[in-house]
Amino acid sequence: MESKNAKIVTCVAPVNIAVIKYWGKLDEELLIPLNDSLSGTLSTDFMRAKTTIMVSPTLQENKFWLNGKEQSFDNKRLDNCLKEIKRRANQELPILNWKLSICSENNFPTAAGLASSAAGYACLVSALAILYDIEGDISSIARRGSGSACRSMYGGWVHWCKGIKEDGLDSIAKQIAPASHWPEMRVLILVVSDGKKKYGSTEGMKRGVETSELITYRAQYVVPKRIEDISEAIKKRDFNTFAQITMQDSNQMHAICLDTYPPCVYMTNVSHAIAGLVHAYNSYKGSNKVAYTFDAGPNACLYLLEPEVEEFVSIVNYVFPPSDPQGYFQGMPLSMKDIPQDIKLSLDLERHQVGSLKSIIHTKIGEGPQIISDSTCHLLNDLGVPKQTP
Amino acid sequence: MESKNAKIVTCVAPVNIAVIKYWGKLDEELLIPLNDSLSGTLSTDFMRAKTTIMVSPTLQENKFWLNGKEQSFDNKRLDNCLKEIKRRANQELPILNWKLSICSENNFPTAAGLASSAAGYACLVSALAILYDIEGDISSIARRGSGSACRSMYGGWVHWCKGIKEDGLDSIAKQIAPASHWPEMRVLILVVSDGKKKYGSTEGMKRGVETSELITYRAQYVVPKRIEDISEAIKKRDFNTFAQITMQDSNQMHAICLDTYPPCVYMTNVSHAIAGLVHAYNSYKGSNKVAYTFDAGPNACLYLLEPEVEEFVSIVNYVFPPSDPQGYFQGMPLSMKDIPQDIKLSLDLERHQVGSLKSIIHTKIGEGPQIISDSTCHLLNDLGVPKQTP
Repeated sequence: MESKNAKIVTCVAPVNIAVIKYWGKLDEELLIPLNDSLSGTLSTDFMRAKTTIMVSPTLQENKFWLNGKEQSFDNKRLDNCLKEIKRRANQELPILNWKLSICSENNFPTAAGLASSAAGYACLVSALAILYDIEGDISSIARRGSGSACRSMYGGWVHWCKGIKEDGLDSIAKQIAPASHWPEMRVLILVVSDGKKKYGSTEGMKRGVETSELITYRAQYVVPKRIEDISEAIKKRDFNTFAQITMQDSNQMHAICLDTYPPCVYMTNVSHAIAGLVHAYNSYKGSNKVAYTFDAGPNACLYLLEPEVEEFVSIVNYVFPPSDPQGYFQGMPLSMKDIPQDIKLSLDLERHQVGSLKSIIHTKIGEGPQIISDSTCHLLNDLGVPKQTP
Repeated sequence: MESKNAKIVTCVAPVNIAVIKYWGKLDEELLIPLNDSLSGTLSTDFMRAKTTIMVSPTLQENKFWLNGKEQSFDNKRLDNCLKEIKRRANQELPILNWKLSICSENNFPTAAGLASSAAGYACLVSALAILYDIEGDISSIARRGSGSACRSMYGGWVHWCKGIKEDGLDSIAKQIAPASHWPEMRVLILVVSDGKKKYGSTEGMKRGVETSELITYRAQYVVPKRIEDISEAIKKRDFNTFAQITMQDSNQMHAICLDTYPPCVYMTNVSHAIAGLVHAYNSYKGSNKVAYTFDAGPNACLYLLEPEVEEFVSIVNYVFPPSDPQGYFQGMPLSMKDIPQDIKLSLDLERHQVGSLKSIIHTKIGEGPQIISDSTCHLLNDLGVPKQTP
């Protein structure tokens, strides 16, 4: 039984994949970016963060569990989000003085190396906003947790405007088109096997701002035009243009990483081989049918339309043979077909080592954060303690 | 016996390794670069082009052999060099109307993947200039054969000024310091095993100029300052600064390649692992002791001072174990030592697959093109025919 006045809420929130990249902060504390960015929000059917928050007068202390492990509550980013939520709340709410239990988990495939902080902070802030009755834009609050989390606050296609205010209150996300606008859009995430530890995006961006001589030019002169052009392409559902800008911007982000000193290298030989395969396929098809984009890691995120999925994934499967088919394909169902002989010849397909890819996730564009009203889905019991520990 | 009026000359010319990269042409026909560049000239003791040219009234047609194979004389770059030589010659010279036999060979390790055209055209133009008695700067003639060939016209440290004239006559190389200025400077070329065919630098540059949004900014704002700073560092023999600028400029060239559409990727996982090892070593040493630079391929060229060679090459040999030691080490003698345990631990040395490197060439900074006066060294016999065919 819940304590009489306790409040509990559970939300899920999506991952987003940027097509115009956020790379570099103008303000390290407020997480104001150097440039605007734009992303597609992925369906929560297959990849999502889930967070339950209880606020209750009976809780003795603030507690926070992530993926089954208790974390320190002394976390600056979490603290910034909470402070901003409480600042915006009605100051007469009694719950402002109560302690919180927060329990969060991601259902991403283990070791997929996919950024979870965007979904995580979007989920946290969505749940907090409900508990504390916050109105108006809350994407700028999610931004305080993890920059790109603000883009996970909306479904469909989302534009994060860097804003011009010093306090960052206008550095917010806006939906430019809902998921339903381009229903054929699919996403394939090719998880690249790579054991090496890498520098995180926070560190890479910071070093980039400090040492790259090209990053400012990119932020000031290249990105604004690309944001405009790709927004237009999305509105018109012009995949060819959308794909070209997406690939160019991914490459430019990694160019900036290489121009950083010492350089940050996230893409591997396999990442580049995937990019090469996409260019060869598009060239064979006579226009762009697939677009790749890479974040701060070796995994490829591919945008493509539904009619292209079967053929392209069959080619990927031929070029990068899986080692263990168990759990290799995840997400929406995938079917394979024989690759036409002329494609094999024209693309000069060369097979890579078995196991170069770890898994393939098939998903689509989806909705923003959602409240889960079914109380059996809460991650916390009535005492504010996680129901399950792994 | 030579024909009475025939003239024959043999030259050798060096390879050069840029520390500020030439990447992008302002004029595709005249080979005028987008930006200045700067290089070290390598000793001809180990790597050189050698060219013999005979000009004789008895020759029936122009002939050209390269590495033992006859080539078509109908070669635009060769033609441009020849035309410019003849234009500058005393127009009363009878040899202007005679035919030529040209025989050229490189002694670079087979399949080293090292650019040979710079040494080749420097050698060709040096020999032609002697035959036709050309005076004044001839680096702008070598440039017409292969842009970076102009830098191989001088020994030591060489600055190619892009010039401002439309005809390119002031796009010439100048020595900023002779080889003797920094006698401890050594070069290690780590030849990376990589079977893949790559796009050449000509194609990569052209596509870069057409599609990279960052290349112009680099050429206009980044390079001029770097040329100034690295020239100063060379003059002062300030290795720490020299190394930082060298590595930054190599990385920026490859950043531009990645910003090209579709991207040009020359560096492999092994190339990046070498760069990472250099940064780890420098960090351990507290200042830059080794500098890497990469051209349009996966091979690393390392600049370092003599006292550092033994230790660093021992580390390289540990991290990248050779598969077949036969012919693996080339050039100047190399000795190895045990790697101190604290280096192994501090650098977190991880061993790569046996055979990741194909060979290591140890060389130094050297002189410009030289005439070989010993007539037994000519590559052509008295009839203008190659003495040996392989």
